[in-house]
Amino acid sequence: MLKIAPQPLTPLAERFSAVRALTLALAAPLSDADATVQSMPDASPTKWHLAHTTWFFETFVLRDHVSGYRLHDERFPFLFNSYYEAEGRRHARDRRGMITRPTLDEVRAYRAYVDAALAAALPDLPEAARELVALGCHHEEQHQELLVTDVLHLFGENPLEPAIWPAAPKVPVAMPGPVRWIDHPGGIVRIGHDGDGFAFDCEGPRHDALLAPHALADRTVTNGEWAAFIADGGYRDPAHWLADGWAWVKAEGIVAPLYWEERDGKWTRFGLDGRRAIDPAAPVTHVSLYEADAYASWAGARLPTEFEWEAAAQAQDARGGNQMDAAGPVEPRPASGPAFFGDVWEWTGSAYRPYPGFRTIEGAVGEYNGKFMSGQFVLRGGSCATPRGHARASYRNFFYPHQRWQFTGVRLAKDL
Amino acid sequence: MLKIAPQPLTPLAERFSAVRALTLALAAPLSDADATVQSMPDASPTKWHLAHTTWFFETFVLRDHVSGYRLHDERFPFLFNSYYEAEGRRHARDRRGMITRPTLDEVRAYRAYVDAALAAALPDLPEAARELVALGCHHEEQHQELLVTDVLHLFGENPLEPAIWPAAPKVPVAMPGPVRWIDHPGGIVRIGHDGDGFAFDCEGPRHDALLAPHALADRTVTNGEWAAFIADGGYRDPAHWLADGWAWVKAEGIVAPLYWEERDGKWTRFGLDGRRAIDPAAPVTHVSLYEADAYASWAGARLPTEFEWEAAAQAQDARGGNQMDAAGPVEPRPASGPAFFGDVWEWTGSAYRPYPGFRTIEGAVGEYNGKFMSGQFVLRGGSCATPRGHARASYRNFFYPHQRWQFTGVRLAKDL
Amino acid sequence: MLKIAPQPLTPLAERFSAVRALTLALAAPLSDADATVQSMPDASPTKWHLAHTTWFFETFVLRDHVSGYRLHDERFPFLFNSYYEAEGRRHARDRRGMITRPTLDEVRAYRAYVDAALAAALPDLPEAARELVALGCHHEEQHQELLVTDVLHLFGENPLEPAIWPAAPKVPVAMPGPVRWIDHPGGIVRIGHDGDGFAFDCEGPRHDALLAPHALADRTVTNGEWAAFIADGGYRDPAHWLADGWAWVKAEGIVAPLYWEERDGKWTRFGLDGRRAIDPAAPVTHVSLYEADAYASWAGARLPTEFEWEAAAQAQDARGGNQMDAAGPVEPRPASGPAFFGDVWEWTGSAYRPYPGFRTIEGAVGEYNGKFMSGQFVLRGGSCATPRGHARASYRNFFYPHQRWQFTGVRLAKDL
Amino acid sequence: MLKIAPQPLTPLAERFSAVRALTLALAAPLSDADATVQSMPDASPTKWHLAHTTWFFETFVLRDHVSGYRLHDERFPFLFNSYYEAEGRRHARDRRGMITRPTLDEVRAYRAYVDAALAAALPDLPEAARELVALGCHHEEQHQELLVTDVLHLFGENPLEPAIWPAAPKVPVAMPGPVRWIDHPGGIVRIGHDGDGFAFDCEGPRHDALLAPHALADRTVTNGEWAAFIADGGYRDPAHWLADGWAWVKAEGIVAPLYWEERDGKWTRFGLDGRRAIDPAAPVTHVSLYEADAYASWAGARLPTEFEWEAAAQAQDARGGNQMDAAGPVEPRPASGPAFFGDVWEWTGSAYRPYPGFRTIEGAVGEYNGKFMSGQFVLRGGSCATPRGHARASYRNFFYPHQRWQFTGVRLAKDL
Repeated sequence: MLKIAPQPLTPLAERFSAVRALTLALAAPLSDADATVQSMPDASPTKWHLAHTTWFFETFVLRDHVSGYRLHDERFPFLFNSYYEAEGRRHARDRRGMITRPTLDEVRAYRAYVDAALAAALPDLPEAARELVALGCHHEEQHQELLVTDVLHLFGENPLEPAIWPAAPKVPVAMPGPVRWIDHPGGIVRIGHDGDGFAFDCEGPRHDALLAPHALADRTVTNGEWAAFIADGGYRDPAHWLADGWAWVKAEGIVAPLYWEERDGKWTRFGLDGRRAIDPAAPVTHVSLYEADAYASWAGARLPTEFEWEAAAQAQDARGGNQMDAAGPVEPRPASGPAFFGDVWEWTGSAYRPYPGFRTIEGAVGEYNGKFMSGQFVLRGGSCATPRGHARASYRNFFYPHQRWQFTGVRLAKDL
Repeated sequence: MLKIAPQPLTPLAERFSAVRALTLALAAPLSDADATVQSMPDASPTKWHLAHTTWFFETFVLRDHVSGYRLHDERFPFLFNSYYEAEGRRHARDRRGMITRPTLDEVRAYRAYVDAALAAALPDLPEAARELVALGCHHEEQHQELLVTDVLHLFGENPLEPAIWPAAPKVPVAMPGPVRWIDHPGGIVRIGHDGDGFAFDCEGPRHDALLAPHALADRTVTNGEWAAFIADGGYRDPAHWLADGWAWVKAEGIVAPLYWEERDGKWTRFGLDGRRAIDPAAPVTHVSLYEADAYASWAGARLPTEFEWEAAAQAQDARGGNQMDAAGPVEPRPASGPAFFGDVWEWTGSAYRPYPGFRTIEGAVGEYNGKFMSGQFVLRGGSCATPRGHARASYRNFFYPHQRWQFTGVRLAKDL
Repeated sequence: MLKIAPQPLTPLAERFSAVRALTLALAAPLSDADATVQSMPDASPTKWHLAHTTWFFETFVLRDHVSGYRLHDERFPFLFNSYYEAEGRRHARDRRGMITRPTLDEVRAYRAYVDAALAAALPDLPEAARELVALGCHHEEQHQELLVTDVLHLFGENPLEPAIWPAAPKVPVAMPGPVRWIDHPGGIVRIGHDGDGFAFDCEGPRHDALLAPHALADRTVTNGEWAAFIADGGYRDPAHWLADGWAWVKAEGIVAPLYWEERDGKWTRFGLDGRRAIDPAAPVTHVSLYEADAYASWAGARLPTEFEWEAAAQAQDARGGNQMDAAGPVEPRPASGPAFFGDVWEWTGSAYRPYPGFRTIEGAVGEYNGKFMSGQFVLRGGSCATPRGHARASYRNFFYPHQRWQFTGVRLAKDL
Repeated sequence: MLKIAPQPLTPLAERFSAVRALTLALAAPLSDADATVQSMPDASPTKWHLAHTTWFFETFVLRDHVSGYRLHDERFPFLFNSYYEAEGRRHARDRRGMITRPTLDEVRAYRAYVDAALAAALPDLPEAARELVALGCHHEEQHQELLVTDVLHLFGENPLEPAIWPAAPKVPVAMPGPVRWIDHPGGIVRIGHDGDGFAFDCEGPRHDALLAPHALADRTVTNGEWAAFIADGGYRDPAHWLADGWAWVKAEGIVAPLYWEERDGKWTRFGLDGRRAIDPAAPVTHVSLYEADAYASWAGARLPTEFEWEAAAQAQDARGGNQMDAAGPVEPRPASGPAFFGDVWEWTGSAYRPYPGFRTIEGAVGEYNGKFMSGQFVLRGGSCATPRGHARASYRNFFYPHQRWQFTGVRLAKDL
């Protein structure tokens, strides 16, 4: 947000329009009920995502920069503010699923109202407001990924395990071979966003970081490899686990990745296309940091630091790989080549903390990232549910170490 | 259920049809989302009520008594069984709100399928099955009342506090005068269902009970009287409260009946027609046993026993008073006359325990009432949300002493 | 307390002295640490029992009736008040185990100070104060039993399972034969304390109760019979259980009475003399109301009501049977004869509620019993840890249905 | 542990003897009860500290390296193992306070037995075992500090707030002046233990770290400055707080450092010498990472990284400052000079994670530090309760961000 580049009118209008359309497309298969229920406090209803992203444009662009703008509904800010303390009281996060009214159609009407107002206002917006529009698009892309993973969680709570989309046709692929290691001699590297194009505040300031000699795996861990970890008793031996992780395994009865279930002696997973057999060649996903760390320990390796990852990824195409291009049953696919982007967010061993010189922005928008900098770990790369174009080498995603309802996976690293 | 009388065909068919129609009418104003969300573990979604009452007929009548009947959907019994352990595994009660699929329309189709099958089968059903149809109608009436109160709770959790129905026109009434006391000299009375017509198992066996001399108030406590209790510090003085009640008041921060809020210095309540000022002349409702007991203590009185209540109510018309005749914004109304039926369920001071000689019925249907006989108190009379015809002098409703989302109220008693 | 009879001086002084001495004797084997730790919120430390019973005499007799009396320590009332709201703030119940200071010796000195003051004041006390002394003795006897059961629980939490006293010598006895049933034709009986001698307020007023024809077992259920219930899957079949009880069994993983453990394929129990094999001939103890009710259901019987029990017990010697005469390893012993008193408190099927005409006493002492009259069940008879002389046919003990750290057991009843 | 230097016999014997004696001296003022009670799951009883440190020597030195050694008591390993999964089952951490037996005297006898055996064995121990003795001494020093802070917490839970030791005489001091800033130009520094003398495994490997230009305060924040933060609404404005910290403040009702209470309008604190007025000139202590971070944000600064801190501290005398020399009422004292050691552990902004090349040691002792490397923050420097000689510039202490019963404080940093 610190780094929003100048925003020419036409591309911005087109981008705004495309982003808004994709969100609606993601919600298209959902009923009013599907879009309303909250399956756990970490997740939000689709209707809330649809409205909250709209509230962002309405509040920070239309209300603040368009004179005479009238709120679509004065009661919505209370309902659809998320965590911006400076924007006043808000509805409790874990009660978002109580909002059966407004209906899904009314929320769609809210979107249409704001979209029309914003499209009309765009030509005359000052540069600062255009930057907020660009920020809002990135913000909405984040919520697109959350929408997909939250809906997946909700459908996974339904004993009928309905599919959200029909399965995509399977393309036969070869099993990935053994991991190859990409060596790095260590030394000082440049880390963080370089100021060219958009970035969130936590990606800067750009700064030097010092790496030790190390190697990164050329691909992420597969479902087949994970099944071997399970079969070897990986979830039953405390020696592999962080103490907090072991306590979590025991308290929650964890025996496999989220959505895995054994049926007739074989591992299956629940996905956007329903329950199916796991693909041993595809990257494992829906694992927590605790599981990722335990796997790495069992494999005689470790997780990469976020700096090691970023140094390696800077040479890659952030728009490449298996990322989300359209609404549909995205899922990680068998790896090919050293793909650092797409498929799964990769847990790093780095705690989510500020870079040297990091400073929070003034005002409500500035609450954005800094206040979450305790207790969470950084993930890098982007997943099959990340809208293509959203990811960057400098992008820092973050979750608590027990969370695993995102498309999260594991790349190994080792010291040289 | 012990006491189901012979069921002639035509009245039973008509009754079945009327009961089923009322349930649909109660759900008519609700969206798919309204009908899906579960607002607390004690409450169930409307869709669940619609399906569960249908499952009862499908399971105990069609499956068990109609050869060749095919289940509408083999997955539904797991979803819509409630607490019948003998009927196998069932979906966790507090996750009923996750069932966004089947949709409300699909559940309505399930109802239509079962209704048609049952109507077709009815003429040939054996007497035992007809009795189960009658039982199912009574069972569905119970769920009609729960449906109304559960939806009220859900809408009360929505910060927008939407009305479910428009308000009924107000008819001006006089404030009720001071309580008059109905004296009873004590002695042996007959208690329990006399075997004439339907009753639930817990209403029998009919037996003698011994009453001490006592008096009952001729009406229930009003909102205006309750406001005086609040103003006198009733919720702040432990001397009035049961120890468990006082712990509940402090832990939950209770300061007034459920749905009451002070707005601009005046008490309002949330109801099926939205938030409105309290009517000081109407019976207070949505109070727990703890509150009822504390009020009685503050007023220098006590709660009636269920036997005192039943002895007095036997002379009353159980079909009279303010009970539910049709879908709409029911609510307690200013009292007139010694109405023992309608308006509010009246907390008694009697724990819900078996009558002498009570015996549980064999089989799944027999799980009906006996297993809930610990920790709960009996309520008597029926409320504005009780379908007219459902109440009886011998009817025993029961809830835990902290529960108050039903239309519950208070009648005072005293020793003579 | 309503019913305290006139208290002649010498017997009262002797009784006071004897009661106070027994409490000290019960605490004699305990270290300062044993006497300080609280093993669960339901239990209290021995030091607290020693001090609280002393506080009762200091507050209600010496402070209120002896002019010029100086409190032993002004800080003690806050520490050692239990639940008397009218006596002001008090230390949180679940933090009683934090009071390492005053030490056990200092608490003994507190006892000695109050004992001396009370002995000196006794001759000149007005009758009302003498009655409070008598009340205090009964109150202390209640705490003697709690002290014993609380210490047993504490030692049971220690993996070393130390014995508090050496085992008493075992006297060989025959296995009790099959239950014989004591029939009762039903009809009106007089229930409650008759005003002759001391009673707690909840034992009155004396009143008529109406019994149905029934029979009571002539002895309580044995360990051997309970082992058969376990072996028959009693803890695994929901059909036997109250719904709340079944939820408790599943949540807590209950498979046997408290303190039972299987060692080398045989059931053992932990007691005041350490861990030993169960005696199949002795009454089962440390079972909850839920277990008692499930056992009765499994056995095709039911629990007695408290009125049935009292009617039968009135003809028995309340000072007879296995009750506590001195400090030592008390435990239920193989039954002989229709002992209604001693061995184990017998769960009844009656909820703890007020008798007709019950009225709470004014003032702090009046908080005594009435406010606990929700959610609990009545137990009758007295146990091996009840000081002999404390029990009465009209005595009403009460606990929540899941509690089982007292010496609680089961007598069966059935309808005739 | 990786880095234990050769251990000549005489100094090691003397050190062993001195360490063991100090632990006993710290426990000397405590009663059996004081030494037994556990005031919260995070804390352990003194008796447990006394026994667990002894168990360490008995298990890893005597049992493993002295042939013919007989355990003092075979039941103690289960009781006094802490978290070494490889050493087998152990008593649940939050039930440590149930162990009233063995008594404090018996635990002292256990210490004497092991001390004698170890003193006798020491001359013949192989070098590997001597290193374990040295490790055990460092381990015991850690527990000395925990013992002091755990006892402080226990006594703080007692409403009587007893003093453990009489207050030390106060020496008048001047208020510290404004903070002066110690600038650092940034660049590569050497971090971690250099292999000369003892260090825990997590302090290595020694490696290069890259610092940005920054400045550190020359002293820690004082009580007076903290009182100004409170007076300015610091605990009421979410803008200063990490999101997790703000949730903690609201859930726990935090308004001041632990042990602070307002009495007659003035801030007091509870300490080892009882409750007294805060000293505005002394370093603030008993603050959490959340509070430290919020204070820094309010002050327009930030917390140091652990690398910035270590780079500055390497030039300081780690044996200097206000550290623990003997049993007594230690507390932070008004600062003089740029003391990096003593008074309070200083929260850093660094998450506790492994250094490049870190590898866990094989075997039970190797569980030591690595498995705690999630969710915790590093503290540096040592406190008034740290045994002098225990601290090092490379020493990494760690706690969860909400914990504050240690002597924890704050040094500010800023970017240049």
